[in-house]
Amino acid sequence: MFLGKVIGSVWSTQKEEGMENLKLLVVQPIDWNEKEGGRTVIAADRIGAGFGEKVIVSSGTPARIIFHNKMVPIDAVIVGIVDSYEVTQET
Amino acid sequence: MFLGKVIGSVWSTQKEEGMENLKLLVVQPIDWNEKEGGRTVIAADRIGAGFGEKVIVSSGTPARIIFHNKMVPIDAVIVGIVDSYEVTQET
Amino acid sequence: MFLGKVIGSVWSTQKEEGMENLKLLVVQPIDWNEKEGGRTVIAADRIGAGFGEKVIVSSGTPARIIFHNKMVPIDAVIVGIVDSYEVTQET
Amino acid sequence: MFLGKVIGSVWSTQKEEGMENLKLLVVQPIDWNEKEGGRTVIAADRIGAGFGEKVIVSSGTPARIIFHNKMVPIDAVIVGIVDSYEVTQET
Amino acid sequence: MFLGKVIGSVWSTQKEEGMENLKLLVVQPIDWNEKEGGRTVIAADRIGAGFGEKVIVSSGTPARIIFHNKMVPIDAVIVGIVDSYEVTQET
Repeated sequence: MFLGKVIGSVWSTQKEEGMENLKLLVVQPIDWNEKEGGRTVIAADRIGAGFGEKVIVSSGTPARIIFHNKMVPIDAVIVGIVDSYEVTQET
Repeated sequence: MFLGKVIGSVWSTQKEEGMENLKLLVVQPIDWNEKEGGRTVIAADRIGAGFGEKVIVSSGTPARIIFHNKMVPIDAVIVGIVDSYEVTQET
Repeated sequence: MFLGKVIGSVWSTQKEEGMENLKLLVVQPIDWNEKEGGRTVIAADRIGAGFGEKVIVSSGTPARIIFHNKMVPIDAVIVGIVDSYEVTQET
Repeated sequence: MFLGKVIGSVWSTQKEEGMENLKLLVVQPIDWNEKEGGRTVIAADRIGAGFGEKVIVSSGTPARIIFHNKMVPIDAVIVGIVDSYEVTQET
Repeated sequence: MFLGKVIGSVWSTQKEEGMENLKLLVVQPIDWNEKEGGRTVIAADRIGAGFGEKVIVSSGTPARIIFHNKMVPIDAVIVGIVDSYEVTQET
């Protein structure tokens, strides 16, 4: 998973089957000093992440597993809102 | 998923089984200021995305799931055409 | 999928089970102006791609699906030989 | 898998189903001279890796397999704590 | 798959279930002129690759397939030792 910050939302009417009723948020990867880096990811959110919040994003089939056997073609999911962290990172 | 812009089409006659009758579009990843960045992706399109449109692309097995049990070796799919978005991105 | 150009072949005698009788080609990712970029990929080819030809490469489990239930540990496959394309790419 | 060093922990209360009771560590990829490089990864740990320890991280569905059929949306797992290594790397 | 060179071994005692009795080698990606590039990968080896040998590495679930239904959380496997290759690469 990677650490990101919610920076927006995106809406789509014309879409694939299985994409109905999904909240899609735009997540900017950040490091532990909140410095932004890397391309944004569009991730599904079911846990109510809000604008500016720090989140944990999971990718690929492991992320899609939250939809069980439903045919939802989602490759990134917000799996946690970050409460706190304790990280020692070189700069 | 990532945000992209449809910039073209590609055609192939000699191809693997399961690749028949697929519309393959060329998608350029862009950021939320429409700045292009990163390598283009060839993605299957079943929702009628047109040249110049902004789209959401899903990758890997989660994307392939739209073909259910058919043996379609596709690793990228356009899953939505973007209507609108609201994003605050640093530059 | 990504666009590539076949630039060579590679042979291996000592190999994992499931790797027998596979033609392995070396594919250089290129952009739509044929400019090379990024690391080469070793991909299985069953459709007769030749040296110098432009091809479409699929990756991961979606690519491996062409081997059905056989235990073939291949993570990249040439799924199409490019006939033509129509792409507008900034430089 | 890649080599990394545990540099911290992250906590989340509001999270997806299947994320309960998981210890999430922050892993910094390093090379064999312990030079840091690349974006940190948030990985699940079930083997008791400690702060500063060198670990082996596996990603994607192969990593998720340790949770068997449980619906755990984890895409990175610490699969080993490094005892020793013998590597000749150019600089 | 990618081309690499075996540059070392790594050992771990404290590890996840399914990691027992695996030989883990360190593989440095190289290009076809043997120039090193990119982060090293820790890959399982069952075919007896030796230090300094050129190998083909497969990744993800397609690589893991060699372990069949065993719960082995391995995301990279050496699937072939390179005998020879014929590649024309620009520099």
